[in-house]
Amino acid sequence: MSEAMMVQTERTPIESGDPAVDGRAFRRCLGQFATGVTIVTTKHGDSLVGMAVNSFSAVSLDPPLVLWSIRHESASLPAFLQAGHYSINVLADSQVEVSQLFGSSKPDKFKQVAWFAGRQGAPLLEHSIAHLECSLETVHEGGDHLILVGRVKHYARFEGAPLLFTQGQYGVSQNHPYLGGPVNSSASSVSQGKDDLFLTLLKSTSQHMSTLFEGHRQALGLTMASGRILKRLSESPCLLEELEHDTYLGRNSTEDGLAELIADGYVLRNSPGLLELTVDGRLKYQALLQRAEGFSAEKLGSISDSDLATARRVLLQLQQC
Amino acid sequence: MSEAMMVQTERTPIESGDPAVDGRAFRRCLGQFATGVTIVTTKHGDSLVGMAVNSFSAVSLDPPLVLWSIRHESASLPAFLQAGHYSINVLADSQVEVSQLFGSSKPDKFKQVAWFAGRQGAPLLEHSIAHLECSLETVHEGGDHLILVGRVKHYARFEGAPLLFTQGQYGVSQNHPYLGGPVNSSASSVSQGKDDLFLTLLKSTSQHMSTLFEGHRQALGLTMASGRILKRLSESPCLLEELEHDTYLGRNSTEDGLAELIADGYVLRNSPGLLELTVDGRLKYQALLQRAEGFSAEKLGSISDSDLATARRVLLQLQQC
Repeated sequence: MSEAMMVQTERTPIESGDPAVDGRAFRRCLGQFATGVTIVTTKHGDSLVGMAVNSFSAVSLDPPLVLWSIRHESASLPAFLQAGHYSINVLADSQVEVSQLFGSSKPDKFKQVAWFAGRQGAPLLEHSIAHLECSLETVHEGGDHLILVGRVKHYARFEGAPLLFTQGQYGVSQNHPYLGGPVNSSASSVSQGKDDLFLTLLKSTSQHMSTLFEGHRQALGLTMASGRILKRLSESPCLLEELEHDTYLGRNSTEDGLAELIADGYVLRNSPGLLELTVDGRLKYQALLQRAEGFSAEKLGSISDSDLATARRVLLQLQQC
Repeated sequence: MSEAMMVQTERTPIESGDPAVDGRAFRRCLGQFATGVTIVTTKHGDSLVGMAVNSFSAVSLDPPLVLWSIRHESASLPAFLQAGHYSINVLADSQVEVSQLFGSSKPDKFKQVAWFAGRQGAPLLEHSIAHLECSLETVHEGGDHLILVGRVKHYARFEGAPLLFTQGQYGVSQNHPYLGGPVNSSASSVSQGKDDLFLTLLKSTSQHMSTLFEGHRQALGLTMASGRILKRLSESPCLLEELEHDTYLGRNSTEDGLAELIADGYVLRNSPGLLELTVDGRLKYQALLQRAEGFSAEKLGSISDSDLATARRVLLQLQQC
């Protein structure tokens, strides 16, 4: 064993420890692993059941097996066990609201989405990018969850890009920026003219700007979640469910971000149960606004108004094709 | 049960069927579910073992359990079973080459990355965004794989964004574009001036252009993978391993794309084993280039040269901050 590259200095973690001590911090750590989002459905007797799941994993090609995990306490568990079959719907990037719906306790979910019945009766959602119709093969104990291994009887793959759930928020995928001009992502890499260089430039500049702003938020001690919650609440007080919906954060991230903001005195729950900013919360949000304005001024300040106006006109023209 | 939203028309899948009939098509279907990328490591006796794994899944918070799957045939399996412990390293978006290294058969992998020894001796990779040190809790049969459930003894979460693997290629995550101006992604959403509108515009235009070009590639009957392989081979012949590396496709996608191109007569394997374009392959790539040029001309054609030059100067200035 060589230790040539073994390093003696470890980067400082944001959080670390024994998972038994701080379950929330452990969950945030697990959230570093990005996943797609699925709706797992079944039909048991006359009732249709569906839930948002991101613990899906492919297991085996031959035989074709997949798995996902469900809480012991889940009200949907008996239906899945008794039906003996389920269908996995892999969501497209356009289906955030479907994910939110099936992650909520709203009634009559299947009245609010387009679907058709699969071979075993389990609903298959329209606009998904994959359907996997499975028989329930094996159930394993997995702590506070059960692991449901299914055998895939029929698969279907559709056009579209996946919805992502990563670090507690919804996202979409983009080609890796290190990739030197893939043919598929833009015209820029394959054509020789100066024209397409412009499209590459557009993409890389956009990525660069987003990365730069990150540092400003962090400097104010705000996480991605708490920053987004502050912004939403600066517009109007709202219920937890609306907050989760409008921020595109998952339920856990919304609750974690909110818990931090409440502990720091920036947010309170008023008497009708609405979440609202405190005076300190408004000040904090103002500080974030000022950072953002400073960032804009710094980045765009050296560019003349007329150049900026021209560049804006060019971008608008591109968007209108 | 209401069927108010039940639809009678199903979209046509790209591929569908019984997984037993076409394993590759089934694997492409499974690839619709996006994942992060982990390197799972262990130390058994004096030997260090590590492999790239995207079948990771969180199972339980209390007790803290996770799982991943390993092929029965994997040469690394005995080490994982005998060591009785493993560590999960969740890769950052900067670690594509680490993923490629641990997905390869190269020797002495741990000489080529920075790492330090964890509590049980298993290597923890520097620059990862999460470390999970686990004891092996349970092993379940899972068809051609074994499912290794681990109990997390120690976790650490680090700053950084995740590497993604989705639809057979590496990617990075970006905020969901439907999100109405999240505070964290750019200055644009929180500041009032016209300046920051420009940064929003930059982002949305970039996304718009990438989406538009997709259609052109598809019209030529090329997949993302085959398009990218054509481009790489138009530069020079190369070995499979280089192709996988340079295209940022996973091994399976590279092989699938290559199999299509060889079957269609666009690529051949020459006598020293190098992959190269045939005459038809060069023509196909020219057709793709022409589409790309046509796309550029169409999109940028209505914009004056001087406006374009100004816009380009503005973008370059922004990149240099």
